[in-house]
Amino acid sequence: MSSTPENAATAAALALFANDRASQSMGMRLGAVEAGMATVHMTIRADMTNGHGICHGGLIFALADSAFAFACNSHGPATVAAAVTIDFLEPARAGDLLTAVAQERWLGKRTGLYDLSVTRADGTVIAHARGRSHRLRSTSLPS
Amino acid sequence: MSSTPENAATAAALALFANDRASQSMGMRLGAVEAGMATVHMTIRADMTNGHGICHGGLIFALADSAFAFACNSHGPATVAAAVTIDFLEPARAGDLLTAVAQERWLGKRTGLYDLSVTRADGTVIAHARGRSHRLRSTSLPS
Amino acid sequence: MSSTPENAATAAALALFANDRASQSMGMRLGAVEAGMATVHMTIRADMTNGHGICHGGLIFALADSAFAFACNSHGPATVAAAVTIDFLEPARAGDLLTAVAQERWLGKRTGLYDLSVTRADGTVIAHARGRSHRLRSTSLPS
Amino acid sequence: MSSTPENAATAAALALFANDRASQSMGMRLGAVEAGMATVHMTIRADMTNGHGICHGGLIFALADSAFAFACNSHGPATVAAAVTIDFLEPARAGDLLTAVAQERWLGKRTGLYDLSVTRADGTVIAHARGRSHRLRSTSLPS
Repeated sequence: MSSTPENAATAAALALFANDRASQSMGMRLGAVEAGMATVHMTIRADMTNGHGICHGGLIFALADSAFAFACNSHGPATVAAAVTIDFLEPARAGDLLTAVAQERWLGKRTGLYDLSVTRADGTVIAHARGRSHRLRSTSLPS
Repeated sequence: MSSTPENAATAAALALFANDRASQSMGMRLGAVEAGMATVHMTIRADMTNGHGICHGGLIFALADSAFAFACNSHGPATVAAAVTIDFLEPARAGDLLTAVAQERWLGKRTGLYDLSVTRADGTVIAHARGRSHRLRSTSLPS
Repeated sequence: MSSTPENAATAAALALFANDRASQSMGMRLGAVEAGMATVHMTIRADMTNGHGICHGGLIFALADSAFAFACNSHGPATVAAAVTIDFLEPARAGDLLTAVAQERWLGKRTGLYDLSVTRADGTVIAHARGRSHRLRSTSLPS
Repeated sequence: MSSTPENAATAAALALFANDRASQSMGMRLGAVEAGMATVHMTIRADMTNGHGICHGGLIFALADSAFAFACNSHGPATVAAAVTIDFLEPARAGDLLTAVAQERWLGKRTGLYDLSVTRADGTVIAHARGRSHRLRSTSLPS
């Protein structure tokens, strides 16, 4: 298998996902990954709903954030989220299959911008978000 | 017990929290609640860490978002998050006890602004966020 | 000339721009307008630079905000900006010709989301922004 | 005069403002400055209103952004705005005297967070914003 950016991006995402207990425990499944792009799926469980009976916004955010992580780490160096703005547009409910797509919009020296969207299976976009990434100086995280 | 705003706010939060399976399953505990203010605690579990070995940003957001929900629903009418901007400042790790505080900063007719912070037990602020709330026209959510 | 949405959008933008003394005094020129989309140009003057000798961020924002206004008012009803998040990516300098494009990304009942970008003549994107619009209940503004 | 942080902050703001042709041309006046805090005043002129007859949002933003600049440069090293989120709450009109206050909320190695507010003379807050600053590596700006 040749070492294309797509292969490298997928390999990076798979390695990150293998250690991502949080995404796994929320039932996320990794979809298509390319350099600067990642797709993640999650089905809303009953234990993911809030006091209004709809999916907790934090878990919609978490799905978008995971796609963001796989996209911004697809270039290799360890990269984390510095900031995210999310707009909640429509509710999601238990049983809904959600898909988050993260797409790189700009990449600077150590900072990147990513557009994140979360969509229901019927194609309705339920959230748009934008994330600012920060590439770490080394593979070790700040203590 | 007299019906002060604080009592009403606490009652609203308790009722919301009782049905909030997501916050419960993440191990959140409701702290102090007043009109326009709420505190929520959560201890990071090992299954809440991401591929970098630190707490998944989505779960830090979820904690802040729950505090936001209890604060913006403290006035009575059903209210949801319309948008949130979060800045991640420091990482959190498994075992860390986190506290989120949501504090109303502005309240309009149907919109409100809330400052959200997430702090470790040693007092280090790990995330600042700001949420825009939207009060629903009725108690029923959009379908 | 038939009344297509594009014609109506252009007419709405022209009417708004005719009364927009701020955009005019900043030297903005209206470019292409369609339903949900608008383009505005501005050349950075020496009196638009800040203490660091680069274009004041507020005027880059103002250009994006004008494009936002023409795009979100292109459907007819009076609509204002409720919130905007802007990421400043590169500086601009006196003499630079900047182009802002506002593109509708989502439109709800009374709220819309718009992607805003500001680009230099050499194609370099210097700012990405996203705006949340709010359609007024009547043509009169809150007093 | 002793070299207290307040004196140094004021001196830094005065030096920056002296070269800030944009803020000057908008009629801004520097108010109180301390380490991590700055106040700026501006009266809305008729040529600052938009097509709806209210103050152009870009100029409200510009006022907040100037206060942000004076606050985040108050520590000495050249610092620029990386990102800002603004919520527009109430309109302003020609003749209104606006006051922007920027207050540091968090300061990291090269990044800072600042709360920005814009208030009318009657005390009504018309906009809340939050800015993320980025300290430059040298005094020279990116070309």
